[in-house]
Amino acid sequence: MKQRYACLSSLMVLAMSAFADEGMWTFDNPPSALVQQRYGSSLSPALLEHLQQSAVNFGASASFVSKDGLMLTNHHVAMNCIDKLSTTERDLQKNGYVAKKSSDELKCPGGMARVLISSDDVSEAVSRAVAAGKDDVERTALRKAVIGDLESKCKQSTALQCEVVSLYQGSLYHLYRFKEWNDVRLAFAPEYQAAFFGGDADNFVYPRFALDFALFRVYENDKPLNPKHYLKMADKPVGEGDAVFVVGHPGNTDRLQTLAQLKALRDINMPIQLASAKMQQQLLHAFSKRSPEAARQALDVLFGTENWQKALLGEYAALKSPQLMARKEADEAIFRKAYQEKGLTGDPWAEIDAATAKGVAKAREFWAVGYGQYTLFDKAGKLVELAFERQLPDSVRLSAYRDARITAVERQLRADVPVYKELETIRLAAGINEALDLLGENHPFIQATLGEKSPIVWAEAVVKKSRINEVKERVRLLEGGVKAIEASEDPLIKIALAVYPLRRELLKFKEEQVETPIKQAAEKLGQARFALYGKTLPPDATGTLRLSYGKAAAYTSNGIATPWKTTIGGLLARADGFASKAPFDLAGTIAQKRSQLDPRVPLNFASTADIIGGNSGSPVVNSRGEWVGLIFDGNLESLGGRFVYTDETARALSVDAQAILYALDKVYAAPHLAKELRVN
Amino acid sequence: MKQRYACLSSLMVLAMSAFADEGMWTFDNPPSALVQQRYGSSLSPALLEHLQQSAVNFGASASFVSKDGLMLTNHHVAMNCIDKLSTTERDLQKNGYVAKKSSDELKCPGGMARVLISSDDVSEAVSRAVAAGKDDVERTALRKAVIGDLESKCKQSTALQCEVVSLYQGSLYHLYRFKEWNDVRLAFAPEYQAAFFGGDADNFVYPRFALDFALFRVYENDKPLNPKHYLKMADKPVGEGDAVFVVGHPGNTDRLQTLAQLKALRDINMPIQLASAKMQQQLLHAFSKRSPEAARQALDVLFGTENWQKALLGEYAALKSPQLMARKEADEAIFRKAYQEKGLTGDPWAEIDAATAKGVAKAREFWAVGYGQYTLFDKAGKLVELAFERQLPDSVRLSAYRDARITAVERQLRADVPVYKELETIRLAAGINEALDLLGENHPFIQATLGEKSPIVWAEAVVKKSRINEVKERVRLLEGGVKAIEASEDPLIKIALAVYPLRRELLKFKEEQVETPIKQAAEKLGQARFALYGKTLPPDATGTLRLSYGKAAAYTSNGIATPWKTTIGGLLARADGFASKAPFDLAGTIAQKRSQLDPRVPLNFASTADIIGGNSGSPVVNSRGEWVGLIFDGNLESLGGRFVYTDETARALSVDAQAILYALDKVYAAPHLAKELRVN
Repeated sequence: MKQRYACLSSLMVLAMSAFADEGMWTFDNPPSALVQQRYGSSLSPALLEHLQQSAVNFGASASFVSKDGLMLTNHHVAMNCIDKLSTTERDLQKNGYVAKKSSDELKCPGGMARVLISSDDVSEAVSRAVAAGKDDVERTALRKAVIGDLESKCKQSTALQCEVVSLYQGSLYHLYRFKEWNDVRLAFAPEYQAAFFGGDADNFVYPRFALDFALFRVYENDKPLNPKHYLKMADKPVGEGDAVFVVGHPGNTDRLQTLAQLKALRDINMPIQLASAKMQQQLLHAFSKRSPEAARQALDVLFGTENWQKALLGEYAALKSPQLMARKEADEAIFRKAYQEKGLTGDPWAEIDAATAKGVAKAREFWAVGYGQYTLFDKAGKLVELAFERQLPDSVRLSAYRDARITAVERQLRADVPVYKELETIRLAAGINEALDLLGENHPFIQATLGEKSPIVWAEAVVKKSRINEVKERVRLLEGGVKAIEASEDPLIKIALAVYPLRRELLKFKEEQVETPIKQAAEKLGQARFALYGKTLPPDATGTLRLSYGKAAAYTSNGIATPWKTTIGGLLARADGFASKAPFDLAGTIAQKRSQLDPRVPLNFASTADIIGGNSGSPVVNSRGEWVGLIFDGNLESLGGRFVYTDETARALSVDAQAILYALDKVYAAPHLAKELRVN
Repeated sequence: MKQRYACLSSLMVLAMSAFADEGMWTFDNPPSALVQQRYGSSLSPALLEHLQQSAVNFGASASFVSKDGLMLTNHHVAMNCIDKLSTTERDLQKNGYVAKKSSDELKCPGGMARVLISSDDVSEAVSRAVAAGKDDVERTALRKAVIGDLESKCKQSTALQCEVVSLYQGSLYHLYRFKEWNDVRLAFAPEYQAAFFGGDADNFVYPRFALDFALFRVYENDKPLNPKHYLKMADKPVGEGDAVFVVGHPGNTDRLQTLAQLKALRDINMPIQLASAKMQQQLLHAFSKRSPEAARQALDVLFGTENWQKALLGEYAALKSPQLMARKEADEAIFRKAYQEKGLTGDPWAEIDAATAKGVAKAREFWAVGYGQYTLFDKAGKLVELAFERQLPDSVRLSAYRDARITAVERQLRADVPVYKELETIRLAAGINEALDLLGENHPFIQATLGEKSPIVWAEAVVKKSRINEVKERVRLLEGGVKAIEASEDPLIKIALAVYPLRRELLKFKEEQVETPIKQAAEKLGQARFALYGKTLPPDATGTLRLSYGKAAAYTSNGIATPWKTTIGGLLARADGFASKAPFDLAGTIAQKRSQLDPRVPLNFASTADIIGGNSGSPVVNSRGEWVGLIFDGNLESLGGRFVYTDETARALSVDAQAILYALDKVYAAPHLAKELRVN
C-alpha cells in the first residue's frame, strides 16, 4: 500500500527541487542544456569564450569592464591593495579614492591580474605517466613529475603561465593557460563605510545595502591595456525572475561529504562550537558593559566572535533543515545504489564512517584540549610547540608547524599587537571553564592546567604573572628555542609545557586516524562519482574559473518575506532605523549628498546562483552576457552551500550595476568613470 | 567542586535576565518598584489614575486622545465598524475615510466603548459566601450567586456597569466598575493597504511599515464627549532605550503551563501541526501554479495557512530556545521547592503530567481523526454531529455543540460561501493522506473513510458526487435533523456518519481525561503560586486592563541586526524592493504623495513591553504619561510570550505617534485632526 503516498509526496518533491540552479561549472563543460531548459537562454560558444576571457583572477574574482582595461571587483577584495596604498596622511580606506585622470591611478604593490586564455584535458597523459608507478609513493612522484613537465613545456611554447589543475577529486587533470599582468592600478574606491555599510552585523545577511565595489585599471607596458574581451554594461537593470550568470573563482565546497559526516557535524561538532561561540559572545558582551574602555578593548574579538557565530549558525541551520538532509539522503541513496550496480569495489562510505566515528568519540577533547582560542595562553602554547616541533623532521611534525606553515606562526608571535590583561583573564577563565565542563575534572588536561583551583582565581594569577603579552619576551623565547622554553618561569609557558605531550598525541591521532583516512576515502568517492556520472554533474569548487547560473529571486526566511532587491532609499532607511549609529552610519559622501539622492535606484539584489567564498568580485551577467551586477556576499542561508545547494532560501548577493553607475556619477564625482563604463 | 562553575555561569544568567521587563500588571498592583529600579521612572498614583481612565475597551484596546473625545485604536480593530459602514458605492476599507467635520463622522452600528472607573477587592466576600458550600457543585452555585449579587448591587448604587473578575486563577476576585458609551463614530481611517502594508506576509514580522491606526469620536447625548482623562501626545518622538508603558487589554497567557506541558507541545503536538501546515502550504502553492484562476481560488486559504504556519513557527521557535526552556526550568524548580517547603499538599504537577501523557499518547489521533480542516468534508461532519448532538442534554454534548456555541456552528453551515471542487479535492486527498501517514492503514478512521482506495481517487469521487457545497442542500440537512442525515445518499455525509462514533469517543476522552484534569490542576497551581508569592508576580492575562512596561530596543534575530524603529523611507524602500507587487504595493494616497514625503519620519518601533493578542490598539506612553505610539502587532519571537516572557528578541510593535500626526497632516488632508491631537 506504500505507493498510495506517491501521488502527493511526489508533488512535494516537485515543489522542492523544480528550480534547483545547482553547480559551479567549468567552462569546458558548461550547463548549456540545463540553462536552455530552465531559462530558454542559450550559452553559445562565442558567449562562453567572451565570458571566460573577460573574467579576471585578482586574488578573488574580477572582470574587465572597459576597452581601456578598467577592472571591476569588490571593495573588500581591493582592501589589500587599498591598505598598502594608504598612509597616515592619505587614509584611502576611510576616505575612498577617485583618480581624476589616468595619471592619478595608483599602482598596487604586488598586484597581479590573470585571465584564463585556454585549457586542455591532459588526464590521459597524467594517467599514462602515473600507471608505471608500483605504489602510492611512486605514483605521487610520477604525477608531480609529469605535471611539472606539462607546465614547463606549455610555458616555453606559449609564453603564458601554465598550471595543471585537478577536477572531480583527481579524476581529471586540465592544463590551464593564463595571461598575467603585474601592473594593476587603483582608479576608484568608495569609503569603507559605503562599501561595508552594516559592518560585521550585516555580513552574511540580507537585505543588504552595500556599495562593495572598486575599480582598477590594468596596464601593459605602462599603457592602459586594451583587453581582447571585456564585459559591456547592460542598459536595463536586472528584473525579478531574470536569468543571471556568475563567472568567478569559487574556492571550496564539500558537497561529497557523506550523510554520516553531515550528521556528525550537525549533532556533535557544531553544537560544541555553537555553545562555545554563544558563551564567548555573552561573556564579551558582559565584559563590554564594564566601561567604555572595556567595550573598546573587546570590540574586535566581539565582532570576530559574532561573525564566527553567525557563519556557524548559517551552516547549522542548513544542516538542521529537513529538506536539505532529505535531499542529501536521496542523493546518497542513488549514488550508493549506482556504485553497487556498477560493481565498484571497496566501501568508501564505511571507511568514512569509521574515521568519523573516531573523530566523534574525541570531539570534546579535540575542541577543549588546547591553549584557548586567541588568548595569551595560545601564544604560550605556540611558543612551546614551535620550539619542539621545529627540531623534528618536517614529515613527522604537527601539520601546523610544517615548513610551509611555520613562518606564519612565527610572524604571528613576533607581531606587536596590544594585549589587554583583564580581557585575557576573563577569556582564559571562560575557556578553561568550558574545558572543565566538556572534559570533567579528572581529565589530564584539566589536571595539567587548572588543577583544583577555581577558573577565575587560576586565570587571574597566571595572566597577572605572565609576560607573554610583551613582544620582547616572546621574541626572546622564540629565538632561545627549547632551552629558553624549559628555563622559563612564566606560568603560562610552564602550563603549556605540561600540556604539550597530551595535546600532541591528540592532534596526531586526529591527523592520522581521522583526517587522513577521510581524505583518502573522499577521493575514492569523488572518483567513483565521476566514473558513474562523468561530467553530467559539476565538480566541487577548487578555486578555478567557474560558471554558475540562476535568477534574481525573493524568498521567505523565518517567516519574513525578503525582497529580491534593495534600493538607495532602503540604505537611508536602515541608517535612520539605527539613528545612524555605527556600523549603520552613512559614509561621509553619501550623508552629504543625501538630499539629492534618488531613493529608487537599485542597490543590491539576491539571486539563486550557486556561489561560495572566492566568488567575491564575480561579475553577474544577463543572458546576453552584459554585466548587471557584482557578487559580494551570500546570505546566511547560503552558507549550507558548502554541503548541499538549495535554492529555497539560499541567495547570492550582488551590487546592482545601476548602483555602481549612479554612485560614480552622482555621489562620488567620477562621471568620467561612469562614462567609460557606459559608452561600451 | 560543582561550585567552581558558579562565577561564570552566574555571569551568563545575569546577561540573560538583567533587563526582563516581564508582566501585564493590574492597576491595583502596579510594578512601581521595578519601574523605578530599572528605568528611574515613577508611577505616581495620579499618573496611574490618569492612564487607567484614559484607556478604553473597544473590543480590543483603545484610548482617549483629545478633550473632545477622539479615540485612537488600530485600523484592524476598527475593521469591524469600517466593514459595517461600507457599501458597494462607498468602500471605506479600500479607500479609507476622512470626516472633514464633526457632522461627517459615521456612527458604528453596535459600537461600544468603556472605561474602567474604579475597582475593589471583593475576594473576602466571595470566599465567605463560598465557604458555606459542602461540595464543588454547591460552592460553584454559591460563588455564582454572590458574584451576581455584588454586580447588581454595584450597578444600582453607582449607575455604572459592574463586573466581578477573577485573577490569579481564582485566587482573587475584583469588582470592576465601568462607564460605557454606545455612540462611537468613525472620524478617520487610512486605506486598508496603508494600515496593513505587507499583508499576511508581514503579519507577526519586524521590521514593519504599517499605518495601522484609526480615529473615532465618542459621543454622549449626541455631543462629543469631554472625557475626564485623555492622553496628550508627546512633543518628542520615542528614542532608543526610552522607557515606555503600555495600557491595554491583553487577552490570554498560559505562563503557568508546566515544563512537561511545554515539552509535550514542543516535541509532540507542534511538530505534527507544523508538518501539516508545511504540507498544506506546499500543496496550495503547487495548486496555485495550475492557472491564474486556481491561484485566485486558493489565495485566501493559502494566506490563512501561511499565517497559521508563521504563528506556529513563532511559538515553536520559542519552545526550541534553550534560554526560554532554561528560564522555565529554573522558575519551575524554585516554585516546586517553595511549594514543598510551605507544606502545600497534593501534587498538581503530577496530575498535569499524567493527563498530558494521556494526551501525548493520542496526539496523532486527536490531530488526524476528523473531517479535514476547512473542507467540504468538515461541513458534512458538522452537519452529522450537529444533528445528533443537539438531541442530547446540554451537559453531555461534545463541547463544540453546547448551547453557548451551537448557533455559531449553525451560522457557519448556513453561510453561502463559494466552494471550489478542484481545490476541495486536492485538500481532502492531502488531509486523508496525512491521516493515513499518522495513523496507518489499519486504523478504524482510515477503514471508515478511505478504505483500500488511493487518496486522490477517493477524494475525486466523493467530492464530485457530493452536494454539500450547495447551501440549499446544507440547509435541508440542517433542518431535516437526524432523519434527513440518515436518509442522505451524499458520500461525504455517509462517511461522516461512519466516522462519528469513533470521533465522539476520542473527543470525549480528550475533554474528560486530558483537558479537564489539566484545567483543574492548573487552577491549583495558580492558587498555590498566589499563596506563595502573592501579588509580587503579575497574574496571567485575562482580558482585563493591564499595564506593561519596557523600552524601545533593537535586537538581533537569526543573525540579523534589526533596528528599533522604521521610517516612511523604509516603507517606500520595501515597496520598491518588491517592485510594488501586492501585498507590498503602496496605498493610493501614499503613492500619489510619494515625492513630497519626508523619508525620515519614524513609522513603527519595537519595544520590550510584555504584550499579547488583545493589546492591539493599546496606547504606548512615555514616563510622563504622554502617548508616543500605538501597539499593533508583536514580532514572531514574541509569540512565545504565551508561555514565557523573554526580552532577548521578543518585541511589541507600535505605530509611532509622529507617523500618525504626519499622515493626518501631510498625506490624508486631515490637518484638523492632526491639530486636535497636537493642541492638547
